[in-house]
Amino acid sequence: MGTQALRSDMGWSTADRITVRGLDLCQDVLGQLALGDFAFLEVTGRKPDAAESTVFNAILAVLVEHGMTPSAMVARLTYLGAPESMQAAIAAGLCGMGTTFAGTAEGAARLLQEALPLGTAREYDVAGTAARIVQQHRQQRLPVPGIGHPVHKPVDPRAVRLFAIAEENGLAGPYVALMQAISQEAERAFGKPGQLPVNATGAIGAIASELGLSWKLCRGLAVVSRAVGLLGHLAEEIEHPIANTLWVRTEEEASSHLVPKEPQ
Amino acid sequence: MGTQALRSDMGWSTADRITVRGLDLCQDVLGQLALGDFAFLEVTGRKPDAAESTVFNAILAVLVEHGMTPSAMVARLTYLGAPESMQAAIAAGLCGMGTTFAGTAEGAARLLQEALPLGTAREYDVAGTAARIVQQHRQQRLPVPGIGHPVHKPVDPRAVRLFAIAEENGLAGPYVALMQAISQEAERAFGKPGQLPVNATGAIGAIASELGLSWKLCRGLAVVSRAVGLLGHLAEEIEHPIANTLWVRTEEEASSHLVPKEPQ
Amino acid sequence: MGTQALRSDMGWSTADRITVRGLDLCQDVLGQLALGDFAFLEVTGRKPDAAESTVFNAILAVLVEHGMTPSAMVARLTYLGAPESMQAAIAAGLCGMGTTFAGTAEGAARLLQEALPLGTAREYDVAGTAARIVQQHRQQRLPVPGIGHPVHKPVDPRAVRLFAIAEENGLAGPYVALMQAISQEAERAFGKPGQLPVNATGAIGAIASELGLSWKLCRGLAVVSRAVGLLGHLAEEIEHPIANTLWVRTEEEASSHLVPKEPQ
Amino acid sequence: MGTQALRSDMGWSTADRITVRGLDLCQDVLGQLALGDFAFLEVTGRKPDAAESTVFNAILAVLVEHGMTPSAMVARLTYLGAPESMQAAIAAGLCGMGTTFAGTAEGAARLLQEALPLGTAREYDVAGTAARIVQQHRQQRLPVPGIGHPVHKPVDPRAVRLFAIAEENGLAGPYVALMQAISQEAERAFGKPGQLPVNATGAIGAIASELGLSWKLCRGLAVVSRAVGLLGHLAEEIEHPIANTLWVRTEEEASSHLVPKEPQ
Repeated sequence: MGTQALRSDMGWSTADRITVRGLDLCQDVLGQLALGDFAFLEVTGRKPDAAESTVFNAILAVLVEHGMTPSAMVARLTYLGAPESMQAAIAAGLCGMGTTFAGTAEGAARLLQEALPLGTAREYDVAGTAARIVQQHRQQRLPVPGIGHPVHKPVDPRAVRLFAIAEENGLAGPYVALMQAISQEAERAFGKPGQLPVNATGAIGAIASELGLSWKLCRGLAVVSRAVGLLGHLAEEIEHPIANTLWVRTEEEASSHLVPKEPQ
Repeated sequence: MGTQALRSDMGWSTADRITVRGLDLCQDVLGQLALGDFAFLEVTGRKPDAAESTVFNAILAVLVEHGMTPSAMVARLTYLGAPESMQAAIAAGLCGMGTTFAGTAEGAARLLQEALPLGTAREYDVAGTAARIVQQHRQQRLPVPGIGHPVHKPVDPRAVRLFAIAEENGLAGPYVALMQAISQEAERAFGKPGQLPVNATGAIGAIASELGLSWKLCRGLAVVSRAVGLLGHLAEEIEHPIANTLWVRTEEEASSHLVPKEPQ
Repeated sequence: MGTQALRSDMGWSTADRITVRGLDLCQDVLGQLALGDFAFLEVTGRKPDAAESTVFNAILAVLVEHGMTPSAMVARLTYLGAPESMQAAIAAGLCGMGTTFAGTAEGAARLLQEALPLGTAREYDVAGTAARIVQQHRQQRLPVPGIGHPVHKPVDPRAVRLFAIAEENGLAGPYVALMQAISQEAERAFGKPGQLPVNATGAIGAIASELGLSWKLCRGLAVVSRAVGLLGHLAEEIEHPIANTLWVRTEEEASSHLVPKEPQ
Repeated sequence: MGTQALRSDMGWSTADRITVRGLDLCQDVLGQLALGDFAFLEVTGRKPDAAESTVFNAILAVLVEHGMTPSAMVARLTYLGAPESMQAAIAAGLCGMGTTFAGTAEGAARLLQEALPLGTAREYDVAGTAARIVQQHRQQRLPVPGIGHPVHKPVDPRAVRLFAIAEENGLAGPYVALMQAISQEAERAFGKPGQLPVNATGAIGAIASELGLSWKLCRGLAVVSRAVGLLGHLAEEIEHPIANTLWVRTEEEASSHLVPKEPQ
């Protein structure tokens, strides 16, 4: 096993040249490839065209900033303890981008890609596939990933907008169709009209599939986006810190039942 | 202390509306604000203009991908152990974006901003300031952050390109001038012509300062960029894994002197 | 949801007293409770008796040090980049203690506790339960967690020793019996005598169950133990660094096919 | 650089034997070496004697549990998002064991070891050295690490107890004497009698130095101890979760000024 060669095509450099994914960093990338497009290059090996760029940046943008999320609280509390290591604060915040929050985009993309593998010819029965998927989840009493939202009802406005952007850019294909059909079928089968719309993570899973990205990378897209958002929260924390107050308050409340009352 | 209000301006949402940094996510951001520009919005509170966007994305792009760095190795080795948690693999890789690698952009920006605080009127003696800075570091036998590179000599092509992009976009101001003067003065004072060019991190520190970004955020910029690069490495690792080979080989070599030789 | 009280029984302090889990830190803990016993107190809320202490420390000890594992490599490579943050280096190394390496102790404990819930009366058919478990895994073509090892055959000496320690201390009860029965049944059913012994993680899962620890905590035990081991690796790395060599070599090999050959 | 051999003495294994730090895991460690003593073995390469074991476990125990600290909050909030990855929750919590909280033990040990290098003959002027150290910090307007505490005055009971344990075990030598002298000198020089006692981190730094541990490892000791404490907090969080409430409340309060009031 140890004799296999280690090999990577990501990049290399010499004294006067740095190459990334086959492009000359100084000539082809700097000043020409924006961060989101660079992310597309990193995961696919090629630059996006204009339509892909718009759509890919849109799904990344959805996940950047959701206000005072657990990940933002974590980054701020970690920075309080280790201001010398902003990298550790961002890393700590990202550690929680797991099954609960980022897992549903992954789950939705997986569902779609298992029904219709990436790179296959795209003739198939959308309604029948949707019905089968909903039925399977129903039988196993599992939630269908990518549909429903506790707050955003009867539609998740982010999903609506993402699908419109995909449509405008010619990238609303079979995965978008299937995701929408799953929502409709689920509302019908569970008898919950207007209650199980495609949510933001379902839209992301569907559109990432349209872009040819493996479901295994969907969680990673959320991580990259949230890294941007956490930097924003740390910038605000540096200017207007709240982590110490959050700590002191939480500590006082959580242990107040333990502390003996002093006699006066 | 615990009675102070917790307050953040980053974002909020209701059933039909999500707002980030004062913008409506669906109307103003999705499809319109690319990831790099969103990062600018997050750290400054406003959208970049076209020149700022080009320059800001350029400094982010420099840091995305440097081939098989320690951070890329860390992300791959972590994914080997915890494929269920891509977020943890990226987070682990980011934990090493510290003083050794990302600290020099921070150090360069700090140096520049301590000489010329952000937001101040910009009349000052460039050459004299550069001479003073170089002399101080020389006396304390400290390296001057942002200049010199073990490989890229007599110039770091990334710094050259970044400064050209800043110049083309009207953003090569006093910080760029000071960084360049420091390099020239250091080469003169240390008697090392062509040996102490502004390097990529020096250029990033100078240009981040031109954009009004606190030196405290420079490490965070590197972290965000590298998150993108680590996603790329994990995408490659999923397709063409090397982490297991790297482990087996390293383990065998590192402990071979300990293992008793078997009699034949 | 936000109106529920935050409450924790872990600890509190006043000017002259620090209490942890109901014990006075200075009077009852310092000098009296060793680290492993403190870990027992933290997860169970009470001090271990002598037998529990021996057995619990033994399962922790198994997981501390396995030589140059991926987690050790990760800690060293992260320290190379961020020597200012040893906490980040250890944290990065721990991020990979996931499904691949630490997940099997968790899986074994879960299997056992689903067959025989913690705290239930302990009359049950060991052989029949083992047969049912093996058959279920066989039908679903899933590996049975806790048995088999690529190197340690026909027995894993660590499991043998752990079970002996549990036995000597009166803590080899129904979970140990079931784990051993599963191994025997699996060797029989798969026709692999001497190939599917209880491995170290199986023994840990069984003994943790004897101690009344939820399977949900088993991965955490591995994490705590490995934190100790990673500190050891960093101590060695500080004295005899290898991370830089590991990086340089890996980078050279991985990208050598990309770098154009220079004309001589 | 890449041709140097990779070498580690930490451990190795064959089919029937696992060796750690020169000891046979099954024969010499399991059932015999408790977790804290294993930590001593890992960082020093030898087993502690009884006195060293008591003292080393005592300094580890101080750092395990401080109630609802930022690191505990971080671990809980991370577990909320990624319950599949307890390792990531603990890692995230550890990321904040940095300069603010764990840095002072490191700083105190460094101060002491720079005054009196590890392994040197131990004849020196304690009072004079203390006076010099205090004066240097005073001139540079830097706090002296290891003394003073916002709550624990006029003495920190943990430091008092740790020094007593060191004394009882014959391990209160020149570093403990110097740390105490620094406290006395600082109270005199700053005119703050009873205000600048040796605090817990000062005692840890001094005692770690007595044990021959480099100041570079002190932060790591805090990390290992806190890993134990975070496992305890996660065990409580699984039984009695508070992270979701903490999140919802914080989010509501932090963004309430942004959300437009609905007309009734």
